[in-house]
Amino acid sequence: MTFELTKEYLDQIQSAIDTGDDATLRTEMEELYPADISGILDELAPESAHYLLSLLDKTVGAEILANLDQTERTNLLKLFTSAEIAPFINQMDSDDAVDVLNQQPIQVREEVIGLLEDREQARFILDLLHYEDGVAGSLMQKELIRINVNLTVNACIEEIRQQAEDVENVYAVYVVDDVGKLLGLVSLKKIVLARKNVKIADIYDDDVVFVETYRPVAEVAEVMQKYDLDAIPVVNVQQRLLGRITIDDVVDVITEQAEEDIQVISGLSGEVEEDDSVWQRSKVQLPWLVAGAVGSLMAATVINGFQSELGKIAALAAFIPIIGSTGGNVGIQTSSLILQTLADTSGLSVSLGKRLLKTLLVALINGLVVGLIAGAYTFIIAEPRLFFVVATSLLAVVMLASFMGTVTPLLLSRIGINPAVASGPFITTANDLIGIGVYFLIAQWLLAEV
Amino acid sequence: MTFELTKEYLDQIQSAIDTGDDATLRTEMEELYPADISGILDELAPESAHYLLSLLDKTVGAEILANLDQTERTNLLKLFTSAEIAPFINQMDSDDAVDVLNQQPIQVREEVIGLLEDREQARFILDLLHYEDGVAGSLMQKELIRINVNLTVNACIEEIRQQAEDVENVYAVYVVDDVGKLLGLVSLKKIVLARKNVKIADIYDDDVVFVETYRPVAEVAEVMQKYDLDAIPVVNVQQRLLGRITIDDVVDVITEQAEEDIQVISGLSGEVEEDDSVWQRSKVQLPWLVAGAVGSLMAATVINGFQSELGKIAALAAFIPIIGSTGGNVGIQTSSLILQTLADTSGLSVSLGKRLLKTLLVALINGLVVGLIAGAYTFIIAEPRLFFVVATSLLAVVMLASFMGTVTPLLLSRIGINPAVASGPFITTANDLIGIGVYFLIAQWLLAEV
Repeated sequence: MTFELTKEYLDQIQSAIDTGDDATLRTEMEELYPADISGILDELAPESAHYLLSLLDKTVGAEILANLDQTERTNLLKLFTSAEIAPFINQMDSDDAVDVLNQQPIQVREEVIGLLEDREQARFILDLLHYEDGVAGSLMQKELIRINVNLTVNACIEEIRQQAEDVENVYAVYVVDDVGKLLGLVSLKKIVLARKNVKIADIYDDDVVFVETYRPVAEVAEVMQKYDLDAIPVVNVQQRLLGRITIDDVVDVITEQAEEDIQVISGLSGEVEEDDSVWQRSKVQLPWLVAGAVGSLMAATVINGFQSELGKIAALAAFIPIIGSTGGNVGIQTSSLILQTLADTSGLSVSLGKRLLKTLLVALINGLVVGLIAGAYTFIIAEPRLFFVVATSLLAVVMLASFMGTVTPLLLSRIGINPAVASGPFITTANDLIGIGVYFLIAQWLLAEV
Repeated sequence: MTFELTKEYLDQIQSAIDTGDDATLRTEMEELYPADISGILDELAPESAHYLLSLLDKTVGAEILANLDQTERTNLLKLFTSAEIAPFINQMDSDDAVDVLNQQPIQVREEVIGLLEDREQARFILDLLHYEDGVAGSLMQKELIRINVNLTVNACIEEIRQQAEDVENVYAVYVVDDVGKLLGLVSLKKIVLARKNVKIADIYDDDVVFVETYRPVAEVAEVMQKYDLDAIPVVNVQQRLLGRITIDDVVDVITEQAEEDIQVISGLSGEVEEDDSVWQRSKVQLPWLVAGAVGSLMAATVINGFQSELGKIAALAAFIPIIGSTGGNVGIQTSSLILQTLADTSGLSVSLGKRLLKTLLVALINGLVVGLIAGAYTFIIAEPRLFFVVATSLLAVVMLASFMGTVTPLLLSRIGINPAVASGPFITTANDLIGIGVYFLIAQWLLAEV
């Protein structure tokens, strides 16, 4: 029932484009949803995509453009003149229009806004352009139904009729006073059921959850999720109604945030996809690999400093991997737990002391278990003399990595860096380095009499 | 504007519970949204939460229970008799009711269903109970407005009026034929604007996206996200309308999936929160730590096998960390890219051969860069004789880890295991082990004449 893009279908579209068979293209595209056509454009070369898009109805084209992958869209729009872009922008929701224009060179942006036939849309866009990325204002759209509290349900339906084309999903009508201050809302269901001459003042719900334009996007997502909202009104500091944020935009934010977290944890220093070019992929992978290498070379220097110990007991080298990987693994586990707590702000905040105490108790158990397993291996299979060195070092490393895994993300989050970094290769390597230092120091100390 | 839970407020509520000050509790709770009260119950002991919940209106209580954290809810409901649970279940959306009942012992479940006053609700629940977790049917609610295609808008409004209390968010009215087959939908906006005697047949939209009950939840989430839907109708194989899935449930699914992925990548073998007990946390952390330790001890055995090489050149030990951590880091980066591609099924699928070729080209560049950096360190600072050993081994390890990072998640996904595991500590340790083996083999070979 949903469309699935195949190589054959794509070839068929491509050859219709190559031969200029506009009739076939129009018929084929009419059968698809805009989101499916976006998927096709993603796979076409920009020139072909330009050709196909120009054939389509502007309303459909606007939705397609809004749905396109960002890089794809930027490449595609380079082939369009400002006069070609304007009719699409005219038909977009104001939030999508601003997203698209924000990725254009300033000159194109100004030209397009000047060329818009719908002057209300131009005003909407100018209103929205100045919000910085990451705040509620940047997600908001101006399209909504607002109604003065003193009017009747009938007037409200008239307002919906007039706005019907602009406001795609209505959900609710927002109720304002004479100066535009948000008072509450009436659900569309209530409007369907109400008698037509009833006053809005008598039926509206003043229990409305709203956000200010400057609130961080993550907070908006959390509030909408917590209260199960389909749309949330956005107000200024005087609580005047400025726009609304719909759930589909918030779903996108949540998905992007999750992708970004995984990317940071995986040590990718920027957005990248598997099918990007070899150079792009390398560029995104190398920074953390090099940082990790530098950390490991510092560990190499530490190890070289203990050459005389290694000379006496060569088996010491055998435990370098378990020390390093256990430290790294514990660090990731602990910081991941903290990340989760940081993301969920609904509970009471716990003091750092209490947190650390609990984490260190967990570390004590885990350290003892892992230490004893490795100790047993050491005693039975490898080198009995190293039993205490290996077991004690592992315990120390687990405790230390747990401490670092707790403190680092909290610290990063405090200074405004994405705390997911604390689960990444850099911190893992740092734990590795510290672990090896601890191991050799303990070895030196415990084997001093050897 | 949104409620924030403080220690002081919680103490105040707790003392009102302790002194049995019901009036205060009722007044306080009336000012809050159900989701906020859920947050309070999460922090209270089950006995206190039981007391507070029993004071509240059943409709509010039902929403609160549906919002509660799962573990919290199970602990809380242990204190309730079946007769106490039933009135809450009566008021819940059918999907939430099933979620709650599914966590109860079978006896309680059966008793509660028998005690439900609303027999339609009981029928809904029995319909939904048999869907297994993870398919569309398990997310669906039975509450929706359905209308026969031969009726008028007026009849439709009457239907909405009758169902108004049961169906919280209407969004759209689903249009069916005489045997209940889904034909299309009419948006609530269209109903507000339509003349009352118009036939549904003349205004409904037959371009409706739906899912079958057996579709995986991830697919539902993707479809709803792609087509920006607020609700999606669920049908059986004969395309008869059975229920609908609303966007708020899908948002929860997306969030949980992201949390689960991060948890798996972090090497946590189950759901756990920072404030769970020390034993619970340890239980979730230990399995992968032990698996990692066992892997590292195998590496130790490998290293011990090369004692004679280590005896000749002690500096060989110094590069164990960089070999291990670089292999691990590259593996995480590569598998994370594949994970991303696996999650996004909208594009064309790429052949394994093409994928590997590209990945290995990236690995060649990255391996040369990291290899030369480490080689330079080796040559200048550590042990010139090891230049070739270190540089070649690193190149080999990066290539090998890239290969493993590409193939492992694809393989895991093919056999139905969450491919995120491929970024976890276990695979990282496996890479570590292989890397060290390669390193010492190369060392043995290149230094054979030494």
